[in-house]
Amino acid sequence: MKIAVLGSGAMGGLYSSYLSRHNEVTVIDVNAALVEKVNAEGLEVQEPDGTSNVFHPHAVLSTEGMEPVDLIIVFVKAMFSEGALNNNKGIIGPDTYIMTLQNGSGHEDLLGKFVPQDHIIIGTTQHNASVAGLGVTKHGGSGMTHMGCVVGEAARLQKFADTFTECGLEADVSDGVQKMIWNKLFTNVSASALTGALQVPLGYISSNEHAWKLCCQLIREAVDAAAGLGMDFDYDEKVAEVKAVCDKSPNGLTSIYADLRDGRRSEVDTISGSVVRAGKKSGVATPSHESLVELIHAMEGRPKA
Amino acid sequence: MKIAVLGSGAMGGLYSSYLSRHNEVTVIDVNAALVEKVNAEGLEVQEPDGTSNVFHPHAVLSTEGMEPVDLIIVFVKAMFSEGALNNNKGIIGPDTYIMTLQNGSGHEDLLGKFVPQDHIIIGTTQHNASVAGLGVTKHGGSGMTHMGCVVGEAARLQKFADTFTECGLEADVSDGVQKMIWNKLFTNVSASALTGALQVPLGYISSNEHAWKLCCQLIREAVDAAAGLGMDFDYDEKVAEVKAVCDKSPNGLTSIYADLRDGRRSEVDTISGSVVRAGKKSGVATPSHESLVELIHAMEGRPKA
Repeated sequence: MKIAVLGSGAMGGLYSSYLSRHNEVTVIDVNAALVEKVNAEGLEVQEPDGTSNVFHPHAVLSTEGMEPVDLIIVFVKAMFSEGALNNNKGIIGPDTYIMTLQNGSGHEDLLGKFVPQDHIIIGTTQHNASVAGLGVTKHGGSGMTHMGCVVGEAARLQKFADTFTECGLEADVSDGVQKMIWNKLFTNVSASALTGALQVPLGYISSNEHAWKLCCQLIREAVDAAAGLGMDFDYDEKVAEVKAVCDKSPNGLTSIYADLRDGRRSEVDTISGSVVRAGKKSGVATPSHESLVELIHAMEGRPKA
Repeated sequence: MKIAVLGSGAMGGLYSSYLSRHNEVTVIDVNAALVEKVNAEGLEVQEPDGTSNVFHPHAVLSTEGMEPVDLIIVFVKAMFSEGALNNNKGIIGPDTYIMTLQNGSGHEDLLGKFVPQDHIIIGTTQHNASVAGLGVTKHGGSGMTHMGCVVGEAARLQKFADTFTECGLEADVSDGVQKMIWNKLFTNVSASALTGALQVPLGYISSNEHAWKLCCQLIREAVDAAAGLGMDFDYDEKVAEVKAVCDKSPNGLTSIYADLRDGRRSEVDTISGSVVRAGKKSGVATPSHESLVELIHAMEGRPKA
């Protein structure tokens, strides 16, 4: 299978490495030094057990002149998805599927600008990875990759799941993947978003009365917005799950915390913003998420203390 | 007239000094060194023109054994009002009035626990003052003191306005003082509250697209909550006023900014919280203010970076 991976960050590095075991993989990245290193020395994956492997996907800065591929996996930060796809339109043919395993929900709205709805694959991954150096990915932990679609039967994606599984990335297809995406979203749009706004570790959210009250309000609105889209989640169950995440990693720092601390743009539009968009679609008010999106954007632009 | 001033901070120092010109004034404060200094050397007021005057109100740590007074002016930070009044119940008699010129709105709800509604005086002051040392008040600028009441005719408060004016604190009585309080509140509950949450100077609020959007939403809800209480304000006019305040003092730092920066409790409950309470009374939703109150309280308790 011809697969293009957009973005060679932590997850892009992991997936393109593994998938290159049995597929013709092209990694597309804007970092020239990284592209050069991958082509010269390969991509290294450091496993949790201390072992290390080197893989050799092809790496390019530009896909100009390349033929359409069977599958494009988008692993850039969500706010760069549109630009990255626009810059590489040439590899999108009539049979190309585009897959997103990115954080947040609602990415299908954007992917629909590039391929028909039935060629969009949405999903979640339980893999955990971080960048350990140029062309070096530290694999933190494994888990399932669930994939599904927004229209049609998920079963027709089985060939993609099969090659993922053959390559060491255990995958399945499911008709309930939208609900799985939301299930994962609740923590991101409540506790994680608040760790950014408050610049605190995860444990502070469940231990401070006011932060927790706000967190529960965010969960409440997200449950209501999901219900408006036809997905029923139990509020108390979600609250208990988010609390468990905070309590289990009291000193845990989220990526939205780090992005704001370091003055980078955050993924708030595809995380909290996806709840706002879902609310607008389903006619459910999400005022706390709306405020939080603006507040976090305002934090991105503020002068350094 | 027998007047007690609760709290000898910047505004308490100014008012107790001036009012002591023609009244028997007692300053009540929890700071023993300050009480000692005021009784030994008096209170100094440094005027904007560079001159300086020393006044000699009486100062006490406790009002135990004192007779009821004609007027108590509350000049402690709002979150300490209830405790301060509770500790000095003995000076509240059947004829005692209690006056609040504090920031925020809705202080009458608390004062109603201590005197009947018709003995509550609410108002605003345009004076500006800061603490320049122990027992030393720097008078930044003068202006009107407007006073009114929550029930009955404001005219019966004329005697209080008269003694204020005789003492150099120009004052009038008005039946529209509740609206004056709200008029002053809009900037505090929007731009000022946001400078705290974002830890930025005033100019950032009007110059950053996202901060300004949030600011306008806060004004929108406050205008609606005021309308619910029967006070009509023009949204566009309020937006223009708040923008002018930000643009005029781009580097201005608010007290709520400083309180949060220094890990102190802020007055958010009597500022933004008063909009939330007004909304509850009038059946108007104020979700942005609700979120902001919780967020700012959560900031008060967070560990130092």
